[in-house]
Amino acid sequence: MTIATATPDSHFIIGVDLGGTNIVVSAMSLDGTRLFGEQSAPTLAAEGADAVVARMAKLVDETIVTVMREANVTRDAILGVGLGAPGTVDRERGLVLVAPNLRWHEFPLVERMSALTGLPVKIDNDANCATYGEWWLGAARGGINVIGLTIGTGVGGGIIIDRQLYHGSSDAAGEIGHVTIDLTGRRCGCGNYGCLEAYASGSAIAGRAREALEHDETSSLRARVNGDLAQITAALVYQAASEGDAVALEIVRDTAKFLGAGIANLLNIFNPDVVVIAGGVTQAGELLFAPLRTEVRRRAFKSVTDACRIVPGTLPGTAGVVGAVASFIAQTTGRPPA
Amino acid sequence: MTIATATPDSHFIIGVDLGGTNIVVSAMSLDGTRLFGEQSAPTLAAEGADAVVARMAKLVDETIVTVMREANVTRDAILGVGLGAPGTVDRERGLVLVAPNLRWHEFPLVERMSALTGLPVKIDNDANCATYGEWWLGAARGGINVIGLTIGTGVGGGIIIDRQLYHGSSDAAGEIGHVTIDLTGRRCGCGNYGCLEAYASGSAIAGRAREALEHDETSSLRARVNGDLAQITAALVYQAASEGDAVALEIVRDTAKFLGAGIANLLNIFNPDVVVIAGGVTQAGELLFAPLRTEVRRRAFKSVTDACRIVPGTLPGTAGVVGAVASFIAQTTGRPPA
Repeated sequence: MTIATATPDSHFIIGVDLGGTNIVVSAMSLDGTRLFGEQSAPTLAAEGADAVVARMAKLVDETIVTVMREANVTRDAILGVGLGAPGTVDRERGLVLVAPNLRWHEFPLVERMSALTGLPVKIDNDANCATYGEWWLGAARGGINVIGLTIGTGVGGGIIIDRQLYHGSSDAAGEIGHVTIDLTGRRCGCGNYGCLEAYASGSAIAGRAREALEHDETSSLRARVNGDLAQITAALVYQAASEGDAVALEIVRDTAKFLGAGIANLLNIFNPDVVVIAGGVTQAGELLFAPLRTEVRRRAFKSVTDACRIVPGTLPGTAGVVGAVASFIAQTTGRPPA
Repeated sequence: MTIATATPDSHFIIGVDLGGTNIVVSAMSLDGTRLFGEQSAPTLAAEGADAVVARMAKLVDETIVTVMREANVTRDAILGVGLGAPGTVDRERGLVLVAPNLRWHEFPLVERMSALTGLPVKIDNDANCATYGEWWLGAARGGINVIGLTIGTGVGGGIIIDRQLYHGSSDAAGEIGHVTIDLTGRRCGCGNYGCLEAYASGSAIAGRAREALEHDETSSLRARVNGDLAQITAALVYQAASEGDAVALEIVRDTAKFLGAGIANLLNIFNPDVVVIAGGVTQAGELLFAPLRTEVRRRAFKSVTDACRIVPGTLPGTAGVVGAVASFIAQTTGRPPA
């Protein structure tokens, strides 16, 4: 059975979202109407690549069994595995080139997963997958040219042009977190200065909150971590902001300014119709999105701002697997999923 | 005769580059092998749109006569007019939406030029055309994903994805000059702060030189303008730098840093295989390009830097008309020119 002759609602692709912390696996029907069998397990990268791959393959097998039982189909109904991996990938050769979180280097992920599962496997970058998932079934549905930002420990990005993921000339496009917004600004983990990620990632948000608390004794944030500032997280900042804490509110407003400047850049360059922002930062809700939209409007051209909606992702936890399936379909057929 | 059934080396498109200062018109064969009949005239925008359009139409007519004579063809051999216009355009409706230099607003350029020439007319943004010209017949030839920067009074940009100009969701993509590289930096003409254009345009280069000369009595630049700093131009700065003037050299090195940061952003986002830089700034040659490449390498990811060559344009004066012809062909056939 090939994807071209398959029945859209009764053939399935397994989606895998391989993260630095967790592996999430689901199955989806080709037409995107059925998603089930969500399984997850810790990645435990320190155990080495072989252990991680074995764990993924086991989750894939369990998911296949679930699909067969719940959808009442045979094993033939499973057409392949789409896999989102962190770091840079080489889709054609099936390699994860560099994944710092996993400490993988030129790892032949497609060959290894294919051998263990007996299925065709396609890989893509995880932020690309999250963006494509939000485009296929989430907040960016209906978009033509879409920019996705995934804000977690870092800031990842994905670019969709004319409904297809754009990968660039060597599969490395979309490093939106590493756009300089302040030439002589904060040092970024990538070695550069003033990257968006150095201001607006979850860890940068927590870091800026810690700095602010050094000069403030009154914020409720300090009490929330019993004075141990190392325990401050971005999620705690959003929570304190939503309860009116002045320091936390300022951190969220500053985050909106930094993100706004980065997104205004993207609008002036790309003129997209949707920007979708996924990840923990969406917990801040309109506290973040309202000033963010204002900042973008202040910085970008009116015509590009008018043409674009800026929205939070609506598939927390599943955008990655949904997008891994979408990318499998696009890579296999040369067309975006229906 | 339609473009689909035309003979590539004996049918012609007229290319028009409408600038704030000059209009340049040439004719090219469909296959790009023959270019001739270059005519130019001052734009004289202050005389109003009707006068400008009449002047363009006259140049087009003269060019048609030249083609008929020199190529020994009849009028039927002229298939249409491709026109690059400054500012934002709406290709589908054939409008120049906003062109500050010309003081045009929602001007129906296609309709007007079509009526005067009796030919099909397609328009595109001038920086898009310059980029597409360098891609078709200039320094970016053979590229797949290409970014073009045109550095003159301002900083214009063009984006080519998979050999086609990318226009975005409302024909406004490619405003690369208005990417923020310094959040709280110099005020830009667009109203924003810290745009690349506020640092690296010809006028910004001249402005930075003037500022530097306020604290320097020894630079040869001062003598070149007989002490009248208002006369400083970017071209004078490049010339002084090439002759070893310390102040001018510092301005060129700083320009390389600003441009390098902007281009590094584009590399991390787009992962292009070519960046082509056109305009007066190319006169600075390796004095600019060598430190520029170093700065890009310092700021962008190695894998994207390795995948990309950064080159000066090789069609000064004609990239715009060549690209206007290429854009006409692409808009008419849906495919890039051969």
